[in-house]
Amino acid sequence: MAEPFRIVDVTRVREGTRAADVDRAATEEPLEVRLHGRPFAVIMRTPGSDRDLAAGFLLSERVVKSADELGTIEHCTDVRPPENGRDAAMRENIVNVTLADGVSGAVERMLAERRQVDMNSSCGLCGRLTIESLRADAPAVTAPLVVAGSVLKRLPATLARAQAVFAQTGGLHAAGLFDADGRLDAVAEDVGRHNAVDKVVGRMMMRDALPLSSHVLFVSGRASYEIVQKAFLAGIPIVGSVSAPSSLAIELAAEAGITLVCFVRGESFNIYSHEERIV
Amino acid sequence: MAEPFRIVDVTRVREGTRAADVDRAATEEPLEVRLHGRPFAVIMRTPGSDRDLAAGFLLSERVVKSADELGTIEHCTDVRPPENGRDAAMRENIVNVTLADGVSGAVERMLAERRQVDMNSSCGLCGRLTIESLRADAPAVTAPLVVAGSVLKRLPATLARAQAVFAQTGGLHAAGLFDADGRLDAVAEDVGRHNAVDKVVGRMMMRDALPLSSHVLFVSGRASYEIVQKAFLAGIPIVGSVSAPSSLAIELAAEAGITLVCFVRGESFNIYSHEERIV
Repeated sequence: MAEPFRIVDVTRVREGTRAADVDRAATEEPLEVRLHGRPFAVIMRTPGSDRDLAAGFLLSERVVKSADELGTIEHCTDVRPPENGRDAAMRENIVNVTLADGVSGAVERMLAERRQVDMNSSCGLCGRLTIESLRADAPAVTAPLVVAGSVLKRLPATLARAQAVFAQTGGLHAAGLFDADGRLDAVAEDVGRHNAVDKVVGRMMMRDALPLSSHVLFVSGRASYEIVQKAFLAGIPIVGSVSAPSSLAIELAAEAGITLVCFVRGESFNIYSHEERIV
Repeated sequence: MAEPFRIVDVTRVREGTRAADVDRAATEEPLEVRLHGRPFAVIMRTPGSDRDLAAGFLLSERVVKSADELGTIEHCTDVRPPENGRDAAMRENIVNVTLADGVSGAVERMLAERRQVDMNSSCGLCGRLTIESLRADAPAVTAPLVVAGSVLKRLPATLARAQAVFAQTGGLHAAGLFDADGRLDAVAEDVGRHNAVDKVVGRMMMRDALPLSSHVLFVSGRASYEIVQKAFLAGIPIVGSVSAPSSLAIELAAEAGITLVCFVRGESFNIYSHEERIV
C-alpha cells in the first residue's frame, strides 16, 4: 500500500546554516481510471481512498449519477505479473470501474462522448454558457438545511485536527463533510483540492447517501468553480472554505441554490450567496 | 477587456454581527484555445495575458518547443457579431493559435495525437514512467546558474509586492521569474497555479528567451509535479516555492537537473534537489 507521504532527503537552511536531514513530502502519483478496462482518465493524486476518488470523479464527470449506476471499482489485477516493486506500484495506480448492468451498454457512448467533449468543449465558450449547460444537468439545490454561525466557525479547526498527513508534510488539501451540528462525517486529504472533494463525495455516494442534503462541504483552501460544481452534483446545500472564492464559484453557487461561505477565520466569515441558510 | 476581479455582493459576519457590503473576487472564466480554428483545450483562468497563457500552455503540452514554431496568437474575431455584451465576452474567452509555416502541417497530427493521449494515457501507469517519458522529451537542465541564499529569501516578499490583484481578492496564485540578483523579470497572477506559470513562461517564449537558463521560477503556493514539469520544458534551473513540494515534484526535479527549494519563509528554506546552485 502506497503511503500518503514519502521520506525524502532535504538540506535545511536556517539563518545561513545548512544541515542535511530527512523530511516527509506528500505523495503525488498518477491514478489511471479505466472504464470496463478502457483508459478513461489519469488523475494526479495522493494514494489512499482510490475507490472513493474514482467514484467521486465519475460523478463529477457525469458518467454516473448515483451508486445504483456503479458496478465494481477495483484496483487492477490484469497488468503484468509483479516481477519487482515497480509493477506492484503500477497495480496500485490503476483502478478499473464497471458500471451496473442497466447502464454498462453506455460505456462506448461515454468514451466517444468524452472524446467529443475534449475536442469540442462548447461549454467553454463563456462562463455563463458553462453554468447554463451545467444547470441543465441537475435541479437547483433546495434543501432547507440551516447551520448556526457558531457551528460554522468551528469547522476549520475540526478539519485541521482531522488532517493527519498535512501536519507532517504541509502539502495537502483537505475536504470534510459536516452535519448541521458541526460533526465531521467524512474527511479526505490530497495534493489536489478537487481530489479531496471527489474522495469524500465518492465515499458517500458508495454508501448510497446522495443527495447530501443535510451536509456542509468544507475545504481547506480556496473555493473555485469546480468545487462548487462538485457540491452541486452531489446535492450539497452549503459550501465553506478557509480562503477566497472565485467569481465563477460565486455565480454558480447563486444560480445552483448553494450557500457559499468563504474566509471562515476566527470569529468572522463572508457569505456570498443564499445567506438564509446561515443563522 | 475583462477585469481580473469582479465586484460581488457579500454579507460580512464579524463576531455575530451581519453587514451587507461589496467585495472583490478574483475573476475565473474559461479560455478556449483553438489550433488553426479547431478547438484544442479549455482552461479555467483569470482573464489577462491570455496570449502568454496560450503560448505557455502549448509549450507545456509539447505542441511547440520555441517561439519559432508559433505563428500568431489572437483573440477570436470569427464568432457571431456582438449583438450584446455576452458575445463580446465570448470573443474575449477564445484565442486562436496558428503554427509557423514549417510546422503547421502538423496540426492534424497533433489533434489526433491529443485524442490518442487523452484516451491512452500510458504516461499515467506510474510516476516513474511519467518521468521517464518526460525525460525523453528534453535533456536534463545543466545551466550553471548560482543564487545566493540571501537573494532567495527575498523572493517571496518581492513576488507579493508585485501581486496587485491578490491584495484585493486574496484569491490568486502568483508566479515570478527572477534573475540571479533577485530582480523580477516577469510576473503573472491567476486563480490557477499552473496558469500563472504558463503565463510567465509563455511571455518569455514569445520574446524568444527560451531556454531560461539564467532564471529562477518562484511560485506563491505549493510545488507540484506540473510546476516542475513546466520549468523543465522551459529550461529553468531553479524552482522555488513558499509552500510544500510533492513527492513527484522532488523526484522529477532530481532527475531533470533542477534545484527545488521550498518553504522559503523568513530566514529559512529547504533544498530538495541539486543544492549546489544555492550558495
